[in-house]
Amino acid sequence: MRLTDDIALAQRLADAAGAAIRPHFRSGLDSERKGDASPVTIADRAAEEAMRSILNAERPEDGIIGEEFGSERTGAKRQWVLDPIDGTAGFLAGRPIFGTLIALMVDGWPVMGIIDQPIAGERWVGASGMPTLLNGAEVRCRPCRELSDATLATTGPHYFDDHDGEHFMGLAAKTDHRRMVMGGDCYNYAMLASGHLDLVCEAGLKLHDYAALIPVVEGAGGLMTDWNGDPLHAGSDGHVLALGDSARLEDVIEALACHH
Amino acid sequence: MRLTDDIALAQRLADAAGAAIRPHFRSGLDSERKGDASPVTIADRAAEEAMRSILNAERPEDGIIGEEFGSERTGAKRQWVLDPIDGTAGFLAGRPIFGTLIALMVDGWPVMGIIDQPIAGERWVGASGMPTLLNGAEVRCRPCRELSDATLATTGPHYFDDHDGEHFMGLAAKTDHRRMVMGGDCYNYAMLASGHLDLVCEAGLKLHDYAALIPVVEGAGGLMTDWNGDPLHAGSDGHVLALGDSARLEDVIEALACHH
Repeated sequence: MRLTDDIALAQRLADAAGAAIRPHFRSGLDSERKGDASPVTIADRAAEEAMRSILNAERPEDGIIGEEFGSERTGAKRQWVLDPIDGTAGFLAGRPIFGTLIALMVDGWPVMGIIDQPIAGERWVGASGMPTLLNGAEVRCRPCRELSDATLATTGPHYFDDHDGEHFMGLAAKTDHRRMVMGGDCYNYAMLASGHLDLVCEAGLKLHDYAALIPVVEGAGGLMTDWNGDPLHAGSDGHVLALGDSARLEDVIEALACHH
Repeated sequence: MRLTDDIALAQRLADAAGAAIRPHFRSGLDSERKGDASPVTIADRAAEEAMRSILNAERPEDGIIGEEFGSERTGAKRQWVLDPIDGTAGFLAGRPIFGTLIALMVDGWPVMGIIDQPIAGERWVGASGMPTLLNGAEVRCRPCRELSDATLATTGPHYFDDHDGEHFMGLAAKTDHRRMVMGGDCYNYAMLASGHLDLVCEAGLKLHDYAALIPVVEGAGGLMTDWNGDPLHAGSDGHVLALGDSARLEDVIEALACHH
């Protein structure tokens, strides 16, 4: 299977997810109040079902790892990783900066990723050996000469446990805190790939939260690692860093190691 | 001067500000690295100049209080309060959820407010005695029966001092923390007016940050107060609450009074 065919298929998945999601955005639909800790909407499920249906028809031998409906064909070499609505709380709050995440992993490593924002109509596509595209136009991360100039983003400190929060604060204190932004979920990584942010730092992410981000960020010249600076893969522990300028990696790891 | 004339003028101000801002969004333009603690962009200044120019021509006797260029005619009974880009950090980070804020205050009380999002093309208009409109369609806050069901938003904990942060955490602990969203600036108040959020709690706001929000929220059936539950006016101390359901005020004030 050629990567260009997989990219074309992933675009169809994103189209199907967007069509399933759009009618529910700001519809007044409420998510389930009970159940697990993550808000879950009808849109989330409908979008994942739409994507699984296409994958099962077009790639019957590939595995699927989805946020809502779990894993199929877990032994397959190729795995599609789906998060129909990354940023469910933001979605429920009416913000048009949530995203559908689609990744293809081969042997546990992501080779292709899509971040799709179906309300604003923005789609970032990244793949091994290709420049990242936003709606077909190449995007690039921006340089960051000094950590003190860096704009840092994270979805929210309430997603850190106390220990992780202290390390995050160590990093935040070394960056340009006047520009730090909270919220945003996957949109922060898309903005980093487009050169509007320098760093994203998060913890507690699942594979479906970060797999698609890696090809998008790295195809734009950035770097994604865990909090030790090691590459991210299917077995990573959910501590995620994205850097627009990989030359800052050592500074970031050092700042994260300091308790604030 | 009739309020409908003032609303029509405010719409012209918002149009002018949007035209000044749009070319600079995601342009790669960087704001000044030095200077005060708030990021300042060329777009911010151009938008405020465009609005001041219209006001000085059309309402030469009214006062102006602007974020970028200070106050004119401070003794006037009628004061226009302008924040060309509320959410500058979010703007710089490429998020289409910043806003232009325009308020008209009479004797220190806001009687009309606009929250304009010039990228998504969303404009909320609120005024005394009228329902709040989003692009011409009436919006309403949603009911919230229990504080534990409430979705809370705040732009970021880094905007609280330690003391305020502890009180905020006291409130956050009583709400549905799985749905809490960070970031968003004025957009949170617009989403509350449209029924997608229940509470916004912030500190350190200036008059230009909150004046325009009040008619928008209250025209949609919500309530804005300070952290003591008192009405907001030109002399308030910058501790701001917005409630979609005013029946929750007592619960919110009580929760805020607890240190976490």
